[in-house]
Amino acid sequence: MDKATFDAQYQTYLQAVEDYLRGLFTAKTDYDQIFTAMRYSLLAGGKRIRPILTLEFARLCGLDWHKALPVGCALELVHTYSLIHDDLPCMDDDDLRRGKPTSHKQFGETLAILAGDALQPAAFELILSAVDLRDTARANCALILAKAAGADGMVGGQVLDTLCHATTQDQLAQVHRLKTGALLMAACQLGCAAADGDELQLNCAKIYGENLGMAFQIRDDVLDVVGDEADFGKPIGSDEACGKTTYVNLLGIDGCAQAVERCTVTACDAVATWGDDGFLQCLAKSLAGRNH
Amino acid sequence: MDKATFDAQYQTYLQAVEDYLRGLFTAKTDYDQIFTAMRYSLLAGGKRIRPILTLEFARLCGLDWHKALPVGCALELVHTYSLIHDDLPCMDDDDLRRGKPTSHKQFGETLAILAGDALQPAAFELILSAVDLRDTARANCALILAKAAGADGMVGGQVLDTLCHATTQDQLAQVHRLKTGALLMAACQLGCAAADGDELQLNCAKIYGENLGMAFQIRDDVLDVVGDEADFGKPIGSDEACGKTTYVNLLGIDGCAQAVERCTVTACDAVATWGDDGFLQCLAKSLAGRNH
Repeated sequence: MDKATFDAQYQTYLQAVEDYLRGLFTAKTDYDQIFTAMRYSLLAGGKRIRPILTLEFARLCGLDWHKALPVGCALELVHTYSLIHDDLPCMDDDDLRRGKPTSHKQFGETLAILAGDALQPAAFELILSAVDLRDTARANCALILAKAAGADGMVGGQVLDTLCHATTQDQLAQVHRLKTGALLMAACQLGCAAADGDELQLNCAKIYGENLGMAFQIRDDVLDVVGDEADFGKPIGSDEACGKTTYVNLLGIDGCAQAVERCTVTACDAVATWGDDGFLQCLAKSLAGRNH
Repeated sequence: MDKATFDAQYQTYLQAVEDYLRGLFTAKTDYDQIFTAMRYSLLAGGKRIRPILTLEFARLCGLDWHKALPVGCALELVHTYSLIHDDLPCMDDDDLRRGKPTSHKQFGETLAILAGDALQPAAFELILSAVDLRDTARANCALILAKAAGADGMVGGQVLDTLCHATTQDQLAQVHRLKTGALLMAACQLGCAAADGDELQLNCAKIYGENLGMAFQIRDDVLDVVGDEADFGKPIGSDEACGKTTYVNLLGIDGCAQAVERCTVTACDAVATWGDDGFLQCLAKSLAGRNH
């Protein structure tokens, strides 16, 4: 797949995701400041990698990808809630997110916590109300999301990242496998599950998502050292400033580049023999070489 | 049903719920401080009204009630997460809960927020992994929970309670219908849904839960004025101290007693013609007359 075709397909998915998300939480109620806060963070942009992965895996498994929009967007709700809570004073204490004040800076801590709390069940509601999917597919998707978002997934990773200090490569890999990997893996698997995919497909999706997530995180650590602040969208050197062990400490810049390459090849191999027309391989390669 | 029979049945349910909850989150992992925090709040006792309602409604709809334990206990996870987050400094700022330090006092704010965050998806996982239920029942139950726990349910009620000031009876009713009523209604409906109950049963369950919740809240407001601190388990007069409008302000003590009576009769009527052998009526009456 050439870059122009990839970009066009990515834009098509991105536009559909943005349109879907923009339609959420528009009701007028006596408590609609919660919806304002939910939409503020949800509609702040971003690459929307997770829902786009879901849509492409659903398409590869034979489903009209539009039918997987509620499932993919559910992931974006969970991702958004995690960012709102991660930014809180007692977590990473960040004032800015994507160039805008973080939720608690904009709305206060009370509403920020509640907006995050409300985005979680809303994600499950989206999946479980997805009328274009079969009952079994809905239940399977909701279960995949529950596991990925829970203590043995994203929240466990946040516990390790915030309260523990990873110093070995194994420990670091565990933090990232849970904190960001679990949701990326789920994104791929949810596409398959929405399309009633088989075990083999789910397993390929898992390998792709796992390696994509690992490459993504290693590249993130590299950009934190060598990146351009304007491109990267966050301050360079922040990991070192707060004393975090990163892949750059453990592997060096060259070692990181090799590890990203290895993960990207593994991810691409997992889907190469499986009807992928190149979109997933282009996506993995573009993330591996990204500057932001 | 006489009181001894009611008490015995309540104890049977309660014991089953406690046993089930005690079996959760026991895995040893590198991040198991999150499980310690989740269990600390989950196993702190309480009346367990929500899961017990689920079990009894499941039984009335013809299901072996043991099979509904994951569904009922899922509600207790959501209820527990809501208490942990409600106690936070930026919410009600409480130091004690059921005579023990609140989660953030015991574990710090970071872990308290994360324990709450992890209890939500764990609740959905319990329901969606309930092997004794049919796929449709699992999906229906998870959807009922998602709606009750979300912005148009419990979280919306918390927004109104924390950030707005109800002054009329309609406003107060809306706060409580969302904040505590939504989860109590869901408790009743989940029992029916777990048993693949029909629309009529779901509707009776809704009326029962709604009126039980309303009576419960009005009684709570009365106990905050006339209760005995040792029985009630929280300081008397706390509503007045923080300037909250309550049912006592709006209806007076006698008016509250009449409203509790009316709601209790409506709740009992909703289930009287529907195979209830008296347990639900005894439960409604015992809550209406409770001192704690």
